[in-house]
Amino acid sequence: MRAIILAAGRSKRMKPIEDKNFLKFLGKTLLECQVDIVKKAGFKNITIIAGEHNIAKIKKTFPKLEVIKQKNLDEGMAGAMDSLHPYLKDEAILILSANDFLDESAFNLMKKASEKSPAEILMLAKKVKSYFPGGYLEVANKNRITDIIEKPGEGKEPSDMINIVLHIHKNPKKLIETIKKIKTAKDDKYEMAIAKLIKEDTHAEAVPYTGLWQALKYPWHILELQKYFLSTIRKSKISKTAKISKSAQIKGSVIIEDNVKIFDHATVVGPIYIGKNSIIANNSLVRESMIGDSCVIGFNSEVARSNLADHVWLHTNYIGDSIVSENTALGAGSVTGNLRLDEGEIRMDIQGEKTGSNSNKFGSVIGKDCRIGINVSIMPGVKIGENAFITGGLIINQDIPDNSFVKGKVTLEIKENKLDGSKLKRSL
Amino acid sequence: MRAIILAAGRSKRMKPIEDKNFLKFLGKTLLECQVDIVKKAGFKNITIIAGEHNIAKIKKTFPKLEVIKQKNLDEGMAGAMDSLHPYLKDEAILILSANDFLDESAFNLMKKASEKSPAEILMLAKKVKSYFPGGYLEVANKNRITDIIEKPGEGKEPSDMINIVLHIHKNPKKLIETIKKIKTAKDDKYEMAIAKLIKEDTHAEAVPYTGLWQALKYPWHILELQKYFLSTIRKSKISKTAKISKSAQIKGSVIIEDNVKIFDHATVVGPIYIGKNSIIANNSLVRESMIGDSCVIGFNSEVARSNLADHVWLHTNYIGDSIVSENTALGAGSVTGNLRLDEGEIRMDIQGEKTGSNSNKFGSVIGKDCRIGINVSIMPGVKIGENAFITGGLIINQDIPDNSFVKGKVTLEIKENKLDGSKLKRSL
Amino acid sequence: MRAIILAAGRSKRMKPIEDKNFLKFLGKTLLECQVDIVKKAGFKNITIIAGEHNIAKIKKTFPKLEVIKQKNLDEGMAGAMDSLHPYLKDEAILILSANDFLDESAFNLMKKASEKSPAEILMLAKKVKSYFPGGYLEVANKNRITDIIEKPGEGKEPSDMINIVLHIHKNPKKLIETIKKIKTAKDDKYEMAIAKLIKEDTHAEAVPYTGLWQALKYPWHILELQKYFLSTIRKSKISKTAKISKSAQIKGSVIIEDNVKIFDHATVVGPIYIGKNSIIANNSLVRESMIGDSCVIGFNSEVARSNLADHVWLHTNYIGDSIVSENTALGAGSVTGNLRLDEGEIRMDIQGEKTGSNSNKFGSVIGKDCRIGINVSIMPGVKIGENAFITGGLIINQDIPDNSFVKGKVTLEIKENKLDGSKLKRSL
Repeated sequence: MRAIILAAGRSKRMKPIEDKNFLKFLGKTLLECQVDIVKKAGFKNITIIAGEHNIAKIKKTFPKLEVIKQKNLDEGMAGAMDSLHPYLKDEAILILSANDFLDESAFNLMKKASEKSPAEILMLAKKVKSYFPGGYLEVANKNRITDIIEKPGEGKEPSDMINIVLHIHKNPKKLIETIKKIKTAKDDKYEMAIAKLIKEDTHAEAVPYTGLWQALKYPWHILELQKYFLSTIRKSKISKTAKISKSAQIKGSVIIEDNVKIFDHATVVGPIYIGKNSIIANNSLVRESMIGDSCVIGFNSEVARSNLADHVWLHTNYIGDSIVSENTALGAGSVTGNLRLDEGEIRMDIQGEKTGSNSNKFGSVIGKDCRIGINVSIMPGVKIGENAFITGGLIINQDIPDNSFVKGKVTLEIKENKLDGSKLKRSL
Repeated sequence: MRAIILAAGRSKRMKPIEDKNFLKFLGKTLLECQVDIVKKAGFKNITIIAGEHNIAKIKKTFPKLEVIKQKNLDEGMAGAMDSLHPYLKDEAILILSANDFLDESAFNLMKKASEKSPAEILMLAKKVKSYFPGGYLEVANKNRITDIIEKPGEGKEPSDMINIVLHIHKNPKKLIETIKKIKTAKDDKYEMAIAKLIKEDTHAEAVPYTGLWQALKYPWHILELQKYFLSTIRKSKISKTAKISKSAQIKGSVIIEDNVKIFDHATVVGPIYIGKNSIIANNSLVRESMIGDSCVIGFNSEVARSNLADHVWLHTNYIGDSIVSENTALGAGSVTGNLRLDEGEIRMDIQGEKTGSNSNKFGSVIGKDCRIGINVSIMPGVKIGENAFITGGLIINQDIPDNSFVKGKVTLEIKENKLDGSKLKRSL
Repeated sequence: MRAIILAAGRSKRMKPIEDKNFLKFLGKTLLECQVDIVKKAGFKNITIIAGEHNIAKIKKTFPKLEVIKQKNLDEGMAGAMDSLHPYLKDEAILILSANDFLDESAFNLMKKASEKSPAEILMLAKKVKSYFPGGYLEVANKNRITDIIEKPGEGKEPSDMINIVLHIHKNPKKLIETIKKIKTAKDDKYEMAIAKLIKEDTHAEAVPYTGLWQALKYPWHILELQKYFLSTIRKSKISKTAKISKSAQIKGSVIIEDNVKIFDHATVVGPIYIGKNSIIANNSLVRESMIGDSCVIGFNSEVARSNLADHVWLHTNYIGDSIVSENTALGAGSVTGNLRLDEGEIRMDIQGEKTGSNSNKFGSVIGKDCRIGINVSIMPGVKIGENAFITGGLIINQDIPDNSFVKGKVTLEIKENKLDGSKLKRSL
């Protein structure tokens, strides 16, 4: 069986995150994590479907894997299947995507189910306890799927199982031919084709699953998935080449990579991951976070429950419950607010729609290559686009588009000083 | 003799402090401190006169004491006497109020004087060295009071003794009947009645006193009284259940209550009181202050010479020479200024009148239930009312009324960024 | 030979630095450093030419030296020579100024050259590797100077030697008489007189020099010269009267003077100089800087690569690559930005002209007697004049003149708070 990893998506709902496949967890990109899990579950043949925007980088990262370019990105999974078609051999396929993170157990479960079952299609069926706005599986005897019902509404669920994209197709060519027959302007031809096959009596089976599943659709999902990864640090690993000042404090489970430097009076509270060459400077506090490679957490900064990519430079900042992309720097005194005054749910504008994060603690999402000045106040839930430059002292209470240069209006009233500072001698 | 504690005042000049009777010093409310002192001085019968606004809380705090509701709060002490009337037994009374804090020695002095003297009225007479705008006692032989002169003006004082409300009335019913005869629109019927009795030849005696006296009229008096209480910490007491990191530093005389946690690189400088369950987080500095129960002094905060009620949450703040009421929180980077640029006397608007604090170091008075955002700059002498919410980045240079939601005007000029941040690679 | 130190300049391009002669390096004023070097090089007779504005202070500092007042400051070196005239004895003179810092080797070199050479005028000739916009020396055989060419333009240099003001005149009276004959409105009569003498066949010789030379014309030169001085600290010297907390960290080569106090969790990173009586308070970080006497580096401040005069008071500030004059104080949260968003060269307005600092890291230059409030953001390259008072929370993106009182425009929108903070109970 060949594992097909769908990695051509453009992470639109994750903006300004450039490409969720390259988010890093414990020092590895999400795509590397997924390839590792698939390999560990025994899949030797792996194909990655990439897009125009990331194929070069994916090929470079995985020189030994088959990487296929998806032509039509607007067609979603159907487009991926279409581009896969010419390369398909006479074998079953397992499909997974960056939208759903699953651990090894899910893959093992699917493999075993596939071996035992006569079904042509097998779909991972996550058992949920409360309503989730996704696709529910209607099942008959022995979990045979009779229908897929998108967002049935609370109380109208046909089962407690939702459809997660970890699918096995023993006859993928039949699926692809069916997809081609579907006429719709929407991007759900893949799902419609499966529904059609089910109705035409193709045997599809739900594989009930209670293990780890983390959607990766919205920015806050990154921090949720990060929590899982952090929880897997069972034992601290500190590189021998790391230099840790005697006055620094290390607490809890930590991974500290090569050449990390931790300066005086800094505190590192696990679970935490600190990537190679990074500096945790004097008096800084980093906790429950992932910090990329070659980051500088300058004097007096606090990083809490955040994900920092490589080459992030801080200096006397508070970064809380936030995501900061590569090569971004903040000036002294700048702060990400991570709690509304009313302590209500943080909402974020996702493709024009205010979307709740299910959390009352969420900071900001900052794109790559940003330069943020001194004493900037960033309000909770704000997104700062790639390559945005923000001058000092501003209050950022709105999303900032990619490639913005942001100034405020400074009106200083300069009058004659009738006081004499020399008479206010400071003395000890 | 029965001690009557007048606690019905509405603390108008203390706003936004809700009720000065419930300010806490060394973990006890002011009223508890007063009851304790009165008891120590040997008074077994204690009556508290409360108001509509605080009687429930007072009754709950002192279930064993007689608590009487004062009906007419506008009548001040006369109103208190009037409400006390029906409950009066055939006994002398000692009157004290929350407006004047005195230690045990004053009570012992009054008791002894009362025993020795044939006087019907005894009044504590604080000896002052410079002019004080209060009521001066005119005395004849053996400190017999011949008149009370309100604010005589500097140089015209009839003596060096001012009238402090620690009075003994051996015939309180006579006093109350006299009060009833006084016709005035002002709230000083009590004082006028005493003056009338004196003129009608009732024997009133001044009891000269040189010990501790602290008025509690204006907010800054709280910090002055706090200094006294802090000076009484002779020996450090650290609860066995407190957890103090090895890298934290404790200096001077401290009281650290149960379950307090002091994190790495924090510094605690006495004299200081830290209430139970509170957290002094990493790298914070707290000094010469009182911190209530269940407070969180988050990362990198400094609290100096301030009074924090219970449930105050700080995070990277400077709170200097300030008073913060219960359940109030400040966001990272917010600062209370406590020194004018001209280093002059800090003045505060008290009931519409600019009033000097006699000090050039005073921060702000913040009411209960406030939420103050990140990077807010609060100017010296500013009052922030109860339940005020203040959004991030603002300059607060005026008093904020109770129940305010405060925003600023944010004007961002967002242009195209013609620079390319990816070329400004941060590298180590 | 008499050494003549020209100290009458008004440091116009250094503004708001009051007088560069009194900048301090390693605890000594620049003028003291120069006098010391001159003495070490064996010059016993030293005359200082002062101006109206600094003669009193110079006389007080050097009670044993001859100090002469220059009458006409607009005439520059020619004016100095003119004022020196009546005091001139029959001896050779060596001229140096505060505009060029040289170490002992330059003085020794000049002395030896003067002894060996028949030349009447000797001029120190700094050998440069790239074009410098100064006066180049055109030389013939045996370094005999044939002309001085001001700013010849790159590629048109007559030699690789530039004229530094360390000149010997064996016949100074002849020079002064020649100066008197020059008619020009400019301030370069001195240089023109030398050129004239050279053309009239006076023997002038260039003394090639490859050692330390630091111009002191623009503010950033102060930090460049400071680097040199810091590099001369070979061995740490910590006064026995300094009090250093056990939890403080001292790294690298440091000079810590008498009665300095270093509080808990502070870090001192050499090379650094800390003047007597100064306090490095809790959690502060000072590095690669010079800190004057009686400074208070309050809680949580960072001082990096900066020059602080005496009596500078900080409190939770970042001062980077900046110069702060005497008796200046900053409130909590105020920050000097020291890097442009585009990471380009910092430019500064010098007498009306934008002038590049040759560096992408430069903060601000702050005059004496300033009072800067809380949370002020000072942009890179900004100058703040003497006795400027700046209220809290402002963004300072322009130069502030001497004696300014600076306010911003605060517009608060205060509405009714429809939320109830008491329901958002903070609890642990």
